[in-house]
Amino acid sequence: MEDKWVIELIEQLAQFKEGEIGISRLAFSQADRQAREHIQGRMKDAGLDVRIDAAGNIIGRLAGKDPEAPAVATGSHLDTVPHGGKYDGVVGIAGGLLAIQRLQARGPLTHPVELVVFIAEEASRFGYSNLGSKAMNGTANIHAWSRAQDHSGITLKQAFLKQGLDLSAVTAAARKKEELKGFVELHIEQSRILEKTGSKIGIVEWVAASTRLKITVEGTAAHSGATPMDERQDALVSASMIVLAIQEISLEQSTYGTVGTVGAQIVHPGVMNAVPGMVEMWVDIRGVDHDSIIQTLQDIKDAISTIAEEQHTPVAMEVLSSEKPVLMDEHMVETIENVCRSRGVSYRLMNSGAGHDAMYMAHLTPTGMILIPCKNGLSHHPEESVATEDIMTGIDVLTEMLYRLAK
Amino acid sequence: MEDKWVIELIEQLAQFKEGEIGISRLAFSQADRQAREHIQGRMKDAGLDVRIDAAGNIIGRLAGKDPEAPAVATGSHLDTVPHGGKYDGVVGIAGGLLAIQRLQARGPLTHPVELVVFIAEEASRFGYSNLGSKAMNGTANIHAWSRAQDHSGITLKQAFLKQGLDLSAVTAAARKKEELKGFVELHIEQSRILEKTGSKIGIVEWVAASTRLKITVEGTAAHSGATPMDERQDALVSASMIVLAIQEISLEQSTYGTVGTVGAQIVHPGVMNAVPGMVEMWVDIRGVDHDSIIQTLQDIKDAISTIAEEQHTPVAMEVLSSEKPVLMDEHMVETIENVCRSRGVSYRLMNSGAGHDAMYMAHLTPTGMILIPCKNGLSHHPEESVATEDIMTGIDVLTEMLYRLAK
Repeated sequence: MEDKWVIELIEQLAQFKEGEIGISRLAFSQADRQAREHIQGRMKDAGLDVRIDAAGNIIGRLAGKDPEAPAVATGSHLDTVPHGGKYDGVVGIAGGLLAIQRLQARGPLTHPVELVVFIAEEASRFGYSNLGSKAMNGTANIHAWSRAQDHSGITLKQAFLKQGLDLSAVTAAARKKEELKGFVELHIEQSRILEKTGSKIGIVEWVAASTRLKITVEGTAAHSGATPMDERQDALVSASMIVLAIQEISLEQSTYGTVGTVGAQIVHPGVMNAVPGMVEMWVDIRGVDHDSIIQTLQDIKDAISTIAEEQHTPVAMEVLSSEKPVLMDEHMVETIENVCRSRGVSYRLMNSGAGHDAMYMAHLTPTGMILIPCKNGLSHHPEESVATEDIMTGIDVLTEMLYRLAK
Repeated sequence: MEDKWVIELIEQLAQFKEGEIGISRLAFSQADRQAREHIQGRMKDAGLDVRIDAAGNIIGRLAGKDPEAPAVATGSHLDTVPHGGKYDGVVGIAGGLLAIQRLQARGPLTHPVELVVFIAEEASRFGYSNLGSKAMNGTANIHAWSRAQDHSGITLKQAFLKQGLDLSAVTAAARKKEELKGFVELHIEQSRILEKTGSKIGIVEWVAASTRLKITVEGTAAHSGATPMDERQDALVSASMIVLAIQEISLEQSTYGTVGTVGAQIVHPGVMNAVPGMVEMWVDIRGVDHDSIIQTLQDIKDAISTIAEEQHTPVAMEVLSSEKPVLMDEHMVETIENVCRSRGVSYRLMNSGAGHDAMYMAHLTPTGMILIPCKNGLSHHPEESVATEDIMTGIDVLTEMLYRLAK
């Protein structure tokens, strides 16, 4: 019956989307606002005390016996990438709500327990990820965020306003360390390690750091019919060489857990009858090994220089953001291990290649992460799929964790 | 004084554009309508009898002594690619108008002389090139054109309507062979052959044929952080391999005058945090040697199959259009040669890699093309530049050609 409840909630949230392919529920979109509206109602129905902080994070609180005691929190996000799936983020919200309802049924605990619905976890729309958890840990970069805009020219500032929020005031969402005892996030793995090893639970040790680059290749736009092959400075040819160089470098560095992706590329002028004069490309590098990330960056830089020179197409590289890998709290990791052992659930210590709100909460309070398998490791994809049994196992471990922390 | 007049007209037409970078005057845009309005006024000022045919071509006619005699026509186009230059097309219009005014001053000729401003020469906006000259030679493909739309979803049908024209009626623009004696187009070279060889005039023998392909690469969209390098089907990696394969094949075939270009590429979902799941790319192949074009197509097909198989990313290739190289009229070529010789102007017989309205007029009437050098061969580019002296030489040759044909 509980599994039916969770799946129904996940399906209800999946109704809030744009377009027909997968779930497109970009941060601050109408679909996102509707999903947030829906979950607020459900949190209130569950008897939580719900408030929205200055960054737009929804915080639902179950009172503890000691009103002065720091809260134990769980949570995740509702926004998606374009054409994403039903489970990324949502499992942590629906699962968190069920876990809190179970705790409620067991009777009052010492500590308050909170469910946090973080705003704008995905970077897809405005280029900045984890706005909510960054605001909560006090690292909101209002200066940079103020300049962000989406593809249609809507600024992040305007998006905040439409939500009834003031971007310049998000610093007020920062919480004090003493308000929280710990944070645990339940999330789908978005990779195939659990599936391949047959483990039911992944306990995160490191969350990979993300370094983001923008590479701009300058060629010379020219007539595609009249310009001889040997007189071209074709920006797309150089860009293609760069894509393959980044692929090769990332394959080499993958021994150390580092991955590199050219996810976006825009060709100018981008018409059939012109040799491309300029290409912009965006690169995402992730890893848990600092030396390997540095090596990857250096190798990309070297490859770019060689290609730029040989092809006579100047290339500029800009580091948009660069984060450090984050180690989860040792005691949290041990406690999740103990919970799994005591319940006879197979688990595995692992790293998360994906970034999560837990990464930013870790700077504020002792943090742990519980991962559950997803089919073929597919995520950020319309076919994202998770077995109900695995969701329920994840919620069981989360419930017990929250109980042990809050009891 | 005449040179000042021509340059002023070119500069006036350059005012009609959108945006700040180069000249963006896409077919059927407001800027295009304004430029057409302006030239109509100038044609009427020059005493031409101006009409607009069912396709939107502007035809200005200088009466001849024999009203029954077939007309001698010249002309080119006013529409541009995005961020194009001031001279592509415009030189043939401004130059044609000056040439006709000079003929007028010399006194009546036997044949009428026409200046044609062809509509929608560039394929940039709706994917189909030379709408005006195709309609005039009776090969308008109304069925295909009816389905065309631009990036913002405006259909070609709607664009015609906005111009006060009915797409389904463009067949009425077709002219009978007996209406025309010949057609001569003055155009910038859009290549560096004249500049490199120091010739002032290029006389076109062959106009290259264009074959246009759409290639779609299917990968698997996945999380850019959580998906290990060896488990990816990255559509952009395969697409980049295809770009480089097309470049290599085209370099090989360039001995035969064939060129190949990937001018446009769109990455889906195209966000920093997702491995690309699909890439669409558009390819333009041009050449004058039929065997070489066939070989290029076959080599591209083979390369695509190999890449698709090795990378586990299915690739589909669609031939959007395929034209045959067009031979200019032998007598026209000889007459232009004679004009150049008699005026002591250095010239060179050559092929045109770029397609032109002359290519389609050649199916209707004996056709010739006069090319003039442009700086560094740059065209379809904001820095397109042509020496005034070269423009005037081109107009001199054009004037004399029209005179010899119409006298």
